[in-house]
Amino acid sequence: MPFQFNLKKQDMGTSARLGEMVTPHGIVHTPAFMPVGTQGTVKSMLPEEIRNCGAEIILSNTYHLYLRPGHETVKKLGGLHKFMHWPGPILTDSGGFQVYSLGALRKITPDGVMFRSHIDGSRHFLTPQQAIEIQEALGADIMMCLDECTPYPATPSQTEKSLNLTAKWAQQCKNAKTNSEQALFGIVQGGSYLDLRQQSLDQIAPLNFDGYALGGVSVGEPKDIMYKITESITPLLPGHKPRYLMGVGTPEDIVFAVSCGIDMFDCVIPTRCARHGLLFTNSENVVIKNARWREDNNPIDENCDCYTCKNYSRAYLRHLYFAGEILAMVLNTIHNIRHYMRLMEDIRTAISENRLGEFKKSFNK
Amino acid sequence: MPFQFNLKKQDMGTSARLGEMVTPHGIVHTPAFMPVGTQGTVKSMLPEEIRNCGAEIILSNTYHLYLRPGHETVKKLGGLHKFMHWPGPILTDSGGFQVYSLGALRKITPDGVMFRSHIDGSRHFLTPQQAIEIQEALGADIMMCLDECTPYPATPSQTEKSLNLTAKWAQQCKNAKTNSEQALFGIVQGGSYLDLRQQSLDQIAPLNFDGYALGGVSVGEPKDIMYKITESITPLLPGHKPRYLMGVGTPEDIVFAVSCGIDMFDCVIPTRCARHGLLFTNSENVVIKNARWREDNNPIDENCDCYTCKNYSRAYLRHLYFAGEILAMVLNTIHNIRHYMRLMEDIRTAISENRLGEFKKSFNK
Repeated sequence: MPFQFNLKKQDMGTSARLGEMVTPHGIVHTPAFMPVGTQGTVKSMLPEEIRNCGAEIILSNTYHLYLRPGHETVKKLGGLHKFMHWPGPILTDSGGFQVYSLGALRKITPDGVMFRSHIDGSRHFLTPQQAIEIQEALGADIMMCLDECTPYPATPSQTEKSLNLTAKWAQQCKNAKTNSEQALFGIVQGGSYLDLRQQSLDQIAPLNFDGYALGGVSVGEPKDIMYKITESITPLLPGHKPRYLMGVGTPEDIVFAVSCGIDMFDCVIPTRCARHGLLFTNSENVVIKNARWREDNNPIDENCDCYTCKNYSRAYLRHLYFAGEILAMVLNTIHNIRHYMRLMEDIRTAISENRLGEFKKSFNK
Repeated sequence: MPFQFNLKKQDMGTSARLGEMVTPHGIVHTPAFMPVGTQGTVKSMLPEEIRNCGAEIILSNTYHLYLRPGHETVKKLGGLHKFMHWPGPILTDSGGFQVYSLGALRKITPDGVMFRSHIDGSRHFLTPQQAIEIQEALGADIMMCLDECTPYPATPSQTEKSLNLTAKWAQQCKNAKTNSEQALFGIVQGGSYLDLRQQSLDQIAPLNFDGYALGGVSVGEPKDIMYKITESITPLLPGHKPRYLMGVGTPEDIVFAVSCGIDMFDCVIPTRCARHGLLFTNSENVVIKNARWREDNNPIDENCDCYTCKNYSRAYLRHLYFAGEILAMVLNTIHNIRHYMRLMEDIRTAISENRLGEFKKSFNK
């Protein structure tokens, strides 16, 4: 069944909306957060644990899987879902952002990106066509166009050159796509300039993608610029398609962006922070190595229903952290992912009850 | 309810036996293998996963928990079972072997062991009385006497001196014990000398412990010596009490020792090998980093019913291993522990059907 997006409800006081994406591997209720599974695993979590936390879709990284174990290997083994034992929907990025992050190890040309592997230094050339070929081989439910992520800061002329390349590649990606079961999202660039964001949008929107992403945000720009771009551009993205704010963000960022009309998010914050012992709660976040938890028999968050909070004390988690135990990362990650999923559930409930604006106010601590 | 050991059946052709230990936290069917949870966690496993693998009892290390987070902290937090969320039986060692392993960092005196912490270099003195106090604070179902582990090689006179100290400490441990709910096992030393093993046994057996262990095995001696000691001394240990071969071993070692009448085992082999990518099967063991598994879609062991074998390919496990993913250690450990638990189930079935001797023969690959 081809990809569908059903808009279910609009919040009364904000631009927030409730929807559902129908994919070959199941339904995703939006606004949705996608835990990041870079190398074919959401770090330290079993797929059943991800699902039990409430996640309906995960993100995986084309760049990493292309280099190791190789997309053709994954395809031979039955595709990414089978390979990693995750039966639900998967969105793959295009590899563009990862390559962008390589800095000096990559060079952008009109036809694609030349880069060196972070693993073995081998040379590779990633074209828009190949980005699609890889994502088709992986079997992603949602694929992303190859784009050039404009850095911050960038001059208007650099930014314009970059968004034009992104538009050219978007068309090439669309042309390269062969599988009607897999959705393809376009990406709007334009850096920190509202007029250039509009220009990028005017180029990408007519290509009639299955969804639209705001790219090149959260790349080092001040938060007020990110918020301004999100607030100004999101309402201009096609309303009957899902809208995805790439690489965002903190709980506060997510609530803000939802109020602007964003439907999808991904970010390494909950998983990475967990591994470093920063645990989210609705009040003060918990730095688990803090000495004050040494004999604290309470869970991380007494209002949390996650497996970790139901069964373990802060004192035990602190002990595991200092002992360098793998279980520390497992239990911390379960908590942070569940925290993010509870946030998304709370957001969806708030929208369904027309009180997202109120929810957002209560959130600005 | 105080500790009980019920001998259920003797194998017809060997000295192997079936039994059950009744402890305050549940029943343990013997012969039993105890996964090692050194720092209050069986590395990388959730307690539910340990249980799902079939484990009925785990071992935890007094030395590590005494140093971090401290036995008094564990006691304040409700004891080790609650602390680590493991509701089943726990055996704690005395700390003696861990201190022995510190080498130059420890000094043995007639009253106990002086040692320096491997964490911060702080000085500690562990007496027999304190070993019991710590294990009582942790709330172990089965405690072990403080012993001096005789190194290999050792002269007869060194060995005799050492076993005499072990006997003195055994009496002191017994005297120090205050909680009738917790069982206490004595340890027979005597190194590689059968006559000195007999001498140690003659000192320890009359103290009427709840069970008896062979200590100071698998400390570097040739395997034929270990087998000879096990074969010669095990039948002399009191028959109505559980018999525990400490720190052993490979599957082959376990089958051999069971045939001699041993009921209990612990060893880091399954967990440590798992973390290094060595996976057990009933035929050839799998070195997961081997290039031949690159595109192998089979499970580690097609006859294994573990979560890992039911859901993941060798190719995926190889990928996770090379990617340095935490999930590699989680999935590998689940498999190896389940493999050991299936071994113990097979052993118990073989004894119940009077064919342990046959089983042992089929096992010598």
